Amino acid sequence: MYSDLPVDQLATYRGTTSEPKDFDAFWEDTLDDARLYPLALKVTPCPATLRTVELYDVVFSGFGGELIRAWLRLPAQPLRTEGPIPGVVQFAGYGGGRGDAHENLFWASAGFAHLHMDSRGQGAGWSKGATPDGAGSAGPQGPGVMTRGILDPETYYYRRLFTDAVRAVQSLRSLDSAEIGGPDGAADLRGVVDPDRVAVLGQSQGGSVALAAGAFCPEVAAVVAFVPYLADIPRAVSVTDAYPFREVCDFLAVHRGSTDRVMETLRYFDAVHLARRSKAPALFSVGLMDTITPPSTVYAAYNNYAGPKDLEVWPFNGHEAGGIEDELAALDFLQRELGDG
Amino acid sequence: MYSDLPVDQLATYRGTTSEPKDFDAFWEDTLDDARLYPLALKVTPCPATLRTVELYDVVFSGFGGELIRAWLRLPAQPLRTEGPIPGVVQFAGYGGGRGDAHENLFWASAGFAHLHMDSRGQGAGWSKGATPDGAGSAGPQGPGVMTRGILDPETYYYRRLFTDAVRAVQSLRSLDSAEIGGPDGAADLRGVVDPDRVAVLGQSQGGSVALAAGAFCPEVAAVVAFVPYLADIPRAVSVTDAYPFREVCDFLAVHRGSTDRVMETLRYFDAVHLARRSKAPALFSVGLMDTITPPSTVYAAYNNYAGPKDLEVWPFNGHEAGGIEDELAALDFLQRELGDG
Amino acid sequence: MYSDLPVDQLATYRGTTSEPKDFDAFWEDTLDDARLYPLALKVTPCPATLRTVELYDVVFSGFGGELIRAWLRLPAQPLRTEGPIPGVVQFAGYGGGRGDAHENLFWASAGFAHLHMDSRGQGAGWSKGATPDGAGSAGPQGPGVMTRGILDPETYYYRRLFTDAVRAVQSLRSLDSAEIGGPDGAADLRGVVDPDRVAVLGQSQGGSVALAAGAFCPEVAAVVAFVPYLADIPRAVSVTDAYPFREVCDFLAVHRGSTDRVMETLRYFDAVHLARRSKAPALFSVGLMDTITPPSTVYAAYNNYAGPKDLEVWPFNGHEAGGIEDELAALDFLQRELGDG
Amino acid sequence: MYSDLPVDQLATYRGTTSEPKDFDAFWEDTLDDARLYPLALKVTPCPATLRTVELYDVVFSGFGGELIRAWLRLPAQPLRTEGPIPGVVQFAGYGGGRGDAHENLFWASAGFAHLHMDSRGQGAGWSKGATPDGAGSAGPQGPGVMTRGILDPETYYYRRLFTDAVRAVQSLRSLDSAEIGGPDGAADLRGVVDPDRVAVLGQSQGGSVALAAGAFCPEVAAVVAFVPYLADIPRAVSVTDAYPFREVCDFLAVHRGSTDRVMETLRYFDAVHLARRSKAPALFSVGLMDTITPPSTVYAAYNNYAGPKDLEVWPFNGHEAGGIEDELAALDFLQRELGDG
Amino acid sequence: MYSDLPVDQLATYRGTTSEPKDFDAFWEDTLDDARLYPLALKVTPCPATLRTVELYDVVFSGFGGELIRAWLRLPAQPLRTEGPIPGVVQFAGYGGGRGDAHENLFWASAGFAHLHMDSRGQGAGWSKGATPDGAGSAGPQGPGVMTRGILDPETYYYRRLFTDAVRAVQSLRSLDSAEIGGPDGAADLRGVVDPDRVAVLGQSQGGSVALAAGAFCPEVAAVVAFVPYLADIPRAVSVTDAYPFREVCDFLAVHRGSTDRVMETLRYFDAVHLARRSKAPALFSVGLMDTITPPSTVYAAYNNYAGPKDLEVWPFNGHEAGGIEDELAALDFLQRELGDG
Amino acid sequence: MYSDLPVDQLATYRGTTSEPKDFDAFWEDTLDDARLYPLALKVTPCPATLRTVELYDVVFSGFGGELIRAWLRLPAQPLRTEGPIPGVVQFAGYGGGRGDAHENLFWASAGFAHLHMDSRGQGAGWSKGATPDGAGSAGPQGPGVMTRGILDPETYYYRRLFTDAVRAVQSLRSLDSAEIGGPDGAADLRGVVDPDRVAVLGQSQGGSVALAAGAFCPEVAAVVAFVPYLADIPRAVSVTDAYPFREVCDFLAVHRGSTDRVMETLRYFDAVHLARRSKAPALFSVGLMDTITPPSTVYAAYNNYAGPKDLEVWPFNGHEAGGIEDELAALDFLQRELGDG
Repeated sequence: MYSDLPVDQLATYRGTTSEPKDFDAFWEDTLDDARLYPLALKVTPCPATLRTVELYDVVFSGFGGELIRAWLRLPAQPLRTEGPIPGVVQFAGYGGGRGDAHENLFWASAGFAHLHMDSRGQGAGWSKGATPDGAGSAGPQGPGVMTRGILDPETYYYRRLFTDAVRAVQSLRSLDSAEIGGPDGAADLRGVVDPDRVAVLGQSQGGSVALAAGAFCPEVAAVVAFVPYLADIPRAVSVTDAYPFREVCDFLAVHRGSTDRVMETLRYFDAVHLARRSKAPALFSVGLMDTITPPSTVYAAYNNYAGPKDLEVWPFNGHEAGGIEDELAALDFLQRELGDG
Repeated sequence: MYSDLPVDQLATYRGTTSEPKDFDAFWEDTLDDARLYPLALKVTPCPATLRTVELYDVVFSGFGGELIRAWLRLPAQPLRTEGPIPGVVQFAGYGGGRGDAHENLFWASAGFAHLHMDSRGQGAGWSKGATPDGAGSAGPQGPGVMTRGILDPETYYYRRLFTDAVRAVQSLRSLDSAEIGGPDGAADLRGVVDPDRVAVLGQSQGGSVALAAGAFCPEVAAVVAFVPYLADIPRAVSVTDAYPFREVCDFLAVHRGSTDRVMETLRYFDAVHLARRSKAPALFSVGLMDTITPPSTVYAAYNNYAGPKDLEVWPFNGHEAGGIEDELAALDFLQRELGDG
Repeated sequence: MYSDLPVDQLATYRGTTSEPKDFDAFWEDTLDDARLYPLALKVTPCPATLRTVELYDVVFSGFGGELIRAWLRLPAQPLRTEGPIPGVVQFAGYGGGRGDAHENLFWASAGFAHLHMDSRGQGAGWSKGATPDGAGSAGPQGPGVMTRGILDPETYYYRRLFTDAVRAVQSLRSLDSAEIGGPDGAADLRGVVDPDRVAVLGQSQGGSVALAAGAFCPEVAAVVAFVPYLADIPRAVSVTDAYPFREVCDFLAVHRGSTDRVMETLRYFDAVHLARRSKAPALFSVGLMDTITPPSTVYAAYNNYAGPKDLEVWPFNGHEAGGIEDELAALDFLQRELGDG
Repeated sequence: MYSDLPVDQLATYRGTTSEPKDFDAFWEDTLDDARLYPLALKVTPCPATLRTVELYDVVFSGFGGELIRAWLRLPAQPLRTEGPIPGVVQFAGYGGGRGDAHENLFWASAGFAHLHMDSRGQGAGWSKGATPDGAGSAGPQGPGVMTRGILDPETYYYRRLFTDAVRAVQSLRSLDSAEIGGPDGAADLRGVVDPDRVAVLGQSQGGSVALAAGAFCPEVAAVVAFVPYLADIPRAVSVTDAYPFREVCDFLAVHRGSTDRVMETLRYFDAVHLARRSKAPALFSVGLMDTITPPSTVYAAYNNYAGPKDLEVWPFNGHEAGGIEDELAALDFLQRELGDG
Repeated sequence: MYSDLPVDQLATYRGTTSEPKDFDAFWEDTLDDARLYPLALKVTPCPATLRTVELYDVVFSGFGGELIRAWLRLPAQPLRTEGPIPGVVQFAGYGGGRGDAHENLFWASAGFAHLHMDSRGQGAGWSKGATPDGAGSAGPQGPGVMTRGILDPETYYYRRLFTDAVRAVQSLRSLDSAEIGGPDGAADLRGVVDPDRVAVLGQSQGGSVALAAGAFCPEVAAVVAFVPYLADIPRAVSVTDAYPFREVCDFLAVHRGSTDRVMETLRYFDAVHLARRSKAPALFSVGLMDTITPPSTVYAAYNNYAGPKDLEVWPFNGHEAGGIEDELAALDFLQRELGDG
Repeated sequence: MYSDLPVDQLATYRGTTSEPKDFDAFWEDTLDDARLYPLALKVTPCPATLRTVELYDVVFSGFGGELIRAWLRLPAQPLRTEGPIPGVVQFAGYGGGRGDAHENLFWASAGFAHLHMDSRGQGAGWSKGATPDGAGSAGPQGPGVMTRGILDPETYYYRRLFTDAVRAVQSLRSLDSAEIGGPDGAADLRGVVDPDRVAVLGQSQGGSVALAAGAFCPEVAAVVAFVPYLADIPRAVSVTDAYPFREVCDFLAVHRGSTDRVMETLRYFDAVHLARRSKAPALFSVGLMDTITPPSTVYAAYNNYAGPKDLEVWPFNGHEAGGIEDELAALDFLQRELGDG
């Protein structure tokens, strides 16, 4: 069932959100602050349970210098003999974390160095996380992280998560200089990843984080955003009752006097504004029966995206969108953009 | 519909949880740490919108010295001419905060000094809060605060909230020495409250916090715990699918390997163990159709309560239990225990 | 989520209902009939459990001379020494009654004489009632009172309830001549209430009853209608599936042949037509996510209101609308209109 | 899914309710009062739309002399040439009424005179009714009729409905003396029904009404009670959350202080006590997955039934029980007990 | 609640589906194939449990020569002495079958020969069936029959069901030549049914099957389609989330690549195209609150219907539409069109 | 929440089902029949999109000689240089199929030859299938396949699916003799799989199919059954309302007279009886909060399992049980039993 704009209006819908004047300054300051902390990238091999994929436990310093965890998955050494391989950094959907090292073998199996970043303070909803959100709450908050610190852009949760994402890209691009952990016979990961062929990818919340990484890291070679969340937020909160957008409504239903402040905060994080700042080629997907990220909000991000772009449209899908077919389309797209995995 | 133990078994049910050996040491250390911070109690009159009740905005330092907010409500000065009045400290239910100053006029109208404490980091679910939980998360967490820092008693959310509660009791008992805020003509609150007649009260989460305050503050003169939450947790998580107990299940469904650690943490916070440490007279209530705090868990707390006690049983109520009739029973109880309000 | 008209169309929406030619005659006859019964107002003091508020059990004769109950709450005598105080008559929401005497202390605490009228035959859904609806059903009816006697305006439930409301206003305005009940030392309530400063107030069903009282009693000094029910009924039953409007749909789904008769009956009770007949200053509120009284129906009443008026708009709230913030706005409004409580 | 007692315990379960000492006196007085009103039976032929069944609109005076409607359906005259035929009086399920004359052709098609009684004040939920409940409410009530007048056996709704049922049986048995309505050529119904072969039948609420008619009319020749409602009420309200039993819980959740009075009232109407007073042969049915009338409560009525009896057990059915197969079993049963239709 | 087009647009809405060029060829071939199988009609009397209606168990060969069951119900012999009677062939709603012989006595009682056809492979959802769908699945399918063989018109379930329907009409029209089963004294059904006065009728799925029978059998004398299913399918699947239309969405959400094939298949079965091919007088009904067959889709079929037509509109009903009142309207309609039953 | 037997009773619970005398004869005949059809195994390489895993499209003849599809996944050729590797045959959960070739890379990545069999007629619910169930229905059926042909063991759906499973095991074990498809340069799969080291594995329905394959193929080297479905069916249908067990209840609620036949059929397919016939080492898992395959039914299968066995117990999980942690446990188990992948 379609409950959003008629399909023919979606194609040109550009959203209702306007950006704050100091959007760029806000993010420059934020990322400058992050750069004050050394990356402190450390990569530790996991026990060799798999034969075709190597697994590594990764930690680096993200926003505020806090330690962020991730998994690195590589095609097994005998299969990567032809020089540096392309990389893809993946971000998790809402409520999830990096999961288990043995999950999500697709990208490494396809020949990519696959860095799967944890989402701080999440990872207890459907896939396991291991990273605290040390900054604490900056006020009352509803369940979930969507309203954590939402009364001020400085304290808002996504300021930290987007910054972590930029640092994750930097980590995969500088794998050559990582400290290698583990008992003995440390792995040699120098020369494995080609820093000029690193893409970002994510679904839902992961899609908006990918857009943020694409917007703030000019080095990102390609962006894949499946049903990206956080786009055209003023419309989203008025056209769906589904979580997590609804967390904003729940918060404002109680904190009635904070509507303007909350809406002002969200303007610094809207995926529409992120999309306008990206130049890398991008692949989006959208499910026309999606009530979690309503299609109009995905189109708003897509139609504002400043780089070359393509969109997979799934007329009978909800938030799952294309599923494995989205992944195969992304593989095809990345192989074209980055060369073979 | 009854979905818990048969009614006749409830009367003697004492629960399944055992306490850790160092339970008392853990809480002594926790409260000793809190005492390192000065109370820093400050009381500021609100604009005089009401004629029969005076309202004050209160702040004091709780766990970790963080500032905790509360409302103080007093019967209007012309009505409190006969010497110090008794006090009651109220704690909020899950997801709520201290609300608005103009809500909850019952206790002040009945002649009590009524301190309504905020719950740190909560207060966006149904009644408004204004207090951050500055400590940050100590790991991944599910929505809500029930699993915040749950992998270790030191970092668990309720360590902070219970400590705040002890400081709130101390605040109302030492109102004489509070700093009085406000533009001019500061109120004189000296001699208003009788520190030997201060009770604690709460419903659901507020009930368990009241039990904690009763257990850790021997100065508390009476305890009112309506349908207290957090009692007999090992049983609770196995007999109900309702939130917020279910947050523990959701967390462990993803963090399968952390079951023992989580259960170990919860032993330091189970209301059954709090009840065993209380000497003040107490009034409980229970709803026999309550699926949020299943009746057996309330009975487990009640049957372990070490002081004089009474229980209001509501056979056809759920978590709302006796509602206004619980409040009237509490008023009658406190008037008997503390003298007239 | 918004499911009604776009926000910008709400501001001018005036509804779809037209009024019957004999609307005024119908109500004149109805109220004339009621006047045949003496008011028989009797006020009995409740035991003095509260210190700041005096409570009285009230009974008066409403529609058909049947006895209607209410609570009267007054600020305690020492606080009302400066002459007669303003009054507010409150009507209950659907399914509720006058509740317990000790609930709803806000208006008396703010200095008003507060008469809280019971709703005949209701009061078993969420707050307690004590008044029968002696008239009996005039045909088959669905659950609830919304279709009781709905086949004829003469027998429709709301004819009786609206009439009771007019009598309640008359009761508070004529408190000086009430019979005072109670064992001995009868209270003296002469001169307590200023009959020229009596407002009416209610939420949802209570809001439409307040509009009825305002329309039929020119003596009412101000009207407060939070999310008023029963407005623009032809639209309401076609844009929401929520109860109690849905009771009409359920009835007509079975009594298919009675659609015209039912719609004709409802025209005599539509809050849009009540609003057109009111001259007193009014405060309304609306929740833009309200599915119980869809915002367009509230705007239809508001935009037709004939007196000075103001509207609180809550963009992220449902039927709860502004909650305590609505009450504070009403207090501010009534203090301006009626003078201080 | 089975959620009641284990199947092997059902067979001997006799219930938890005890009867009031004056049960018989209460009902004798009630029925004596009813007898003061003449039956005033009037039967009017409906337009002849059907070829095999004749339809009549019936009215008679029930409790308090109020007019109760019913349909009478007869096999067409050419098919009833062999002398008087047996009759069956049917009572409706909760929320329904007598429906449309053209519905429920089964019993007349099978050769019975079929009187389908309306339920006063019901008939807007799923099948149409046409009879008011003129007695009015005797206090606050929840939606539905289950709590109408429940604070006193004298005012309780089912006192009126059960009395109507007794009068309906009397009506079918005295069809010979009915006034025949209609424009001209009045039908001659003398000698059509054999007053010694009249059974009663109903499902759910209709089943308990049938049990009441069987208990109070010794002339009833057989009783059919499919999944009878209102049996073993104290257990029912504690083992199911489904309506309409739940209306009692909802009422008591608000009217907490009325529990004893309500339970006392219900003892006069419990189908268990009705069953103990019946001598006619009876057929019951039960659905083991029924959550509306939990199987244990049906067994309680069945096991207490004092006459010859049989029970259809449907292991995989809920409240619909045997459906058409129950009807066929009833046809077989009545043909055996009453002779051929 | 209305969730489809505004009521005034419904009146002229004609749908969005276009028909395949070879629509007629496809169906001609299909029906030609069916004609290769002899009808093999056999009619066996059921035991005489009813007095006014005779019941017969019917079997005939449908699509692929597979045996299809049905019930034949006739007014009892003494009532059909005036020559051949008109007939009506009824088709079942989704998930149901022909049910029990003793159900649905309306049409025979009204004087019609009533053939109630089973739906192959259905009849386990709400009314009992007895006919296999022997053709097997032609690919993966979702629950229900809506996607059985949906990848090709040749293998689609409704090709078989529509063909069965044509054969059912032929069966009732050629009752004279049926083989009569049963132990002895075979019934003589010659001359009972007038083959020129046979109508088709159904609700929901049964309504679309009736339209198919009307479209493919010029001998059909009248068509009754209550809330017909399967009309304007491209719109239906985009405006409702209700089953069974949703089965198509569920299928395509998994089989994303098959959208075009599925939509192509459905064009051969859309009730809009069936309606265009019918000449017999027709009666439709629609419920304006129907979410199962959204009103716009019913109007699309109605507005395209090529013969004389009428439409019952039920503004407050859902998929049940007019219920017994639809049946009475149909009786009136058929008596006018076919002569008295 | 636990809704099944107390945890301590689960450990020894053995179920309530008894097996038919001719259980073994029935299955011998069934498998003998299948052997009449040549296996016709054909393996076609998929385009090489992945670098570490080779993908093949597989087809073989199953029950009735019908063609069954599967995916074969192998670790890339450079990684399998040390001789034949072990194999694992996986079966899908209810409603799913073999999915996409690029999904489920775990087992091949771990070094196993992984054959993922399609489930005939399923594969439109959550993962895609490609295999018809050509046998057709043998009677009416509910949605889903759980009641397809359920009136007779010969026609029951699971007779066909279990037989397919036996043929799938045979296929992986005889890969050396497969016909290799594809345009040119056919792959050489001879010597790749060690036929003596082939395990079977599945979750839910897949778990019961794995138990069937283990019971009927003595050559199976190990069995992994996560939360196996179809065990202790008589209990299952009485303790859960969840689908797909509930399909049996839904069917019998309509086909009331078929209860004995259905229960008799199911005895030939109960996983308890399969478990008793297996000798290979087995790993099971169970979620104690599983309402889809209630834990008691899983324990019934486990406790009857005749070979060496182990059980993963997940106290806070539902039907998802251990998720990736179950897979890792299975990897560890299979590496121990079969040697390294």
